[in-house]
Amino acid sequence: MGLTFQHTTLGQRVLFGSGKAAEHLAGEVDRLSARNVMVIASARERPEAERVTAGISTALPYDDVAPHVPIDKAEKARKAATDNGIDLLVCVGGGSTIGMAKAIAMTTGLPIIAVPTTYAGSEATNVWGLTEASRKITGVDDQVLPVTVVYDAELTLSLPAELSIASGLNALAHCIDSMWAPRADPINQALAGEGIRALNGGLPAIRTNSDDLRGRELALYGAYLSAVAFASAGSGMHHKICHVLGGRWNLPHAQTHATVLPYVLAFNAPAAGDAARRIAAAFGADTSTAGLNALRETLDAPQALKDYGFVEGNITEAVQLILPVIPESNPRPVTEDNLTVLLTAAYAGTAPDADWTESQP
Amino acid sequence: MGLTFQHTTLGQRVLFGSGKAAEHLAGEVDRLSARNVMVIASARERPEAERVTAGISTALPYDDVAPHVPIDKAEKARKAATDNGIDLLVCVGGGSTIGMAKAIAMTTGLPIIAVPTTYAGSEATNVWGLTEASRKITGVDDQVLPVTVVYDAELTLSLPAELSIASGLNALAHCIDSMWAPRADPINQALAGEGIRALNGGLPAIRTNSDDLRGRELALYGAYLSAVAFASAGSGMHHKICHVLGGRWNLPHAQTHATVLPYVLAFNAPAAGDAARRIAAAFGADTSTAGLNALRETLDAPQALKDYGFVEGNITEAVQLILPVIPESNPRPVTEDNLTVLLTAAYAGTAPDADWTESQP
Repeated sequence: MGLTFQHTTLGQRVLFGSGKAAEHLAGEVDRLSARNVMVIASARERPEAERVTAGISTALPYDDVAPHVPIDKAEKARKAATDNGIDLLVCVGGGSTIGMAKAIAMTTGLPIIAVPTTYAGSEATNVWGLTEASRKITGVDDQVLPVTVVYDAELTLSLPAELSIASGLNALAHCIDSMWAPRADPINQALAGEGIRALNGGLPAIRTNSDDLRGRELALYGAYLSAVAFASAGSGMHHKICHVLGGRWNLPHAQTHATVLPYVLAFNAPAAGDAARRIAAAFGADTSTAGLNALRETLDAPQALKDYGFVEGNITEAVQLILPVIPESNPRPVTEDNLTVLLTAAYAGTAPDADWTESQP
Repeated sequence: MGLTFQHTTLGQRVLFGSGKAAEHLAGEVDRLSARNVMVIASARERPEAERVTAGISTALPYDDVAPHVPIDKAEKARKAATDNGIDLLVCVGGGSTIGMAKAIAMTTGLPIIAVPTTYAGSEATNVWGLTEASRKITGVDDQVLPVTVVYDAELTLSLPAELSIASGLNALAHCIDSMWAPRADPINQALAGEGIRALNGGLPAIRTNSDDLRGRELALYGAYLSAVAFASAGSGMHHKICHVLGGRWNLPHAQTHATVLPYVLAFNAPAAGDAARRIAAAFGADTSTAGLNALRETLDAPQALKDYGFVEGNITEAVQLILPVIPESNPRPVTEDNLTVLLTAAYAGTAPDADWTESQP
């Protein structure tokens, strides 16, 4: 089989610099000739928002945001934007705040400048989400992609170390799963490899000292790349497993990802060829699994699903739920048997099956 | 110094597949709901154009293209597009043909689908060029960026091996120079590294057998990435040198690039840190210079500027012309003395200065 792929690169401007968010934002507001700016930030994010928007004129500060973007809040915000003649949305915060800006953009067509304060990655994707009567709907619309992202690692210093590591490992899972997801292609793989490289540098530095700005920069940069690669490549085996476990048994998101990832990598790597070599090279390790394991040891990462509420008796049902949603693109065929072995090991936190041996490139 | 950069990602769709150009093009024409398609291809490119456009309806075939896009030809083509109610430009060919499509797009705003048949890379950039009274003017305009590029390595099989190698080495020079050009940033570097990796795989395969489709795919993919990285990063030291040599003494483009590249790499690598490590990793070599030298040996690449019309007496003038245009971003300071040493070695084809020693990472 030759080199065959379809890749859509989303056009976006990224301004990256610690301590430069206010300056970069002001420059972009100017460049876009915006006159009526709505600044979206939750009450908790207000201090960062005020620092960042110090150099621009805010027509409408807006803080009525909530997780998963409830539809009534979205409609209220859309009306506020229209009533105030807003011509630019600026959001300063995490996923919920960026999600609110996207909800406004999808019906109004207003441009967004995103100033992320976490590693969630929503700022780099064209995916929107809304919640109506506790049902979450998501979609894809280029109109919700922020025109510009302003990254300033100083804004992430207030993220606690433990949450930063968990969130960073989630970004790492996006990078690794992008290597064999349904729309994996070499461009996504190159960007995901660069993301692994950055996270592998940044997360240990944050573990050592959560105020390490260089570590924060690398983690933020890696999180950006993980979002770009994942949005383009789609969900692979790892995300399908975690989605089932999280949805059916309400396991904690970040810990589930951190626990399952080494098992999926160990399972796929021997069959993943070039993808495994790319992961190994990005970690600067002999094999992809050696690279991930070394990082996980440094970070003292979560080890076993049993520590997070998953019980052995769930494994049979989990296998039945997961099997049908494994993507055809997965490098290694997934069966009831080998998936049971994988989940049993992930449940107990024992070493992956010894037969899953990755050869050195 | 922290991680600081500004990066603009140009939004574009890439459809890559050998033997699939006609199918991919028809799908895109459909997706864009185009009804009046102008198909631009020179008389020489006509056979490929006919194969590629077999599945679409062509309203206006157009073959009046010439190198460097003379302004009178551009105006004639713009008028033809308007007079015929054209709603989509399809160009099948090399740089001149893509350049003509861009010239039409810049005044009409018509979208372009590019189907490249060479490694020139214009299809992945927002740069246009026009020639008036033998004076070339160039500019940047997002409107000229093709919305979709359809890559089909079968279309490149008719490129002779020697020209393919020269053109591929030119693409390699774009990748390497992107590592330290004025707007170099880690995103460009990651894409340039992926480009080096692809070209290092593809070009030797083409040298062995110019019909090797896998080699052709890798070279075409690498050429695409080189254009993306170079358009974003700008011209570095290597391109400044080659531009002066080519412009002042009319040296052949591809051979000049191929000859000068190893000297610029040897000169910069010891001071280039991460960039040199990225180049080495992309080549799969211990050092960047070892990687490039191994590839050049395989390809039997051009060795000395004296073989292409450059004489020793030109060196002093060349140094004076080049010194003022070396970008400030260059990792190693350039002086009259060290530039003279570099050009003298490149003139004679002797080994780079022994003091320029790159340490292993």
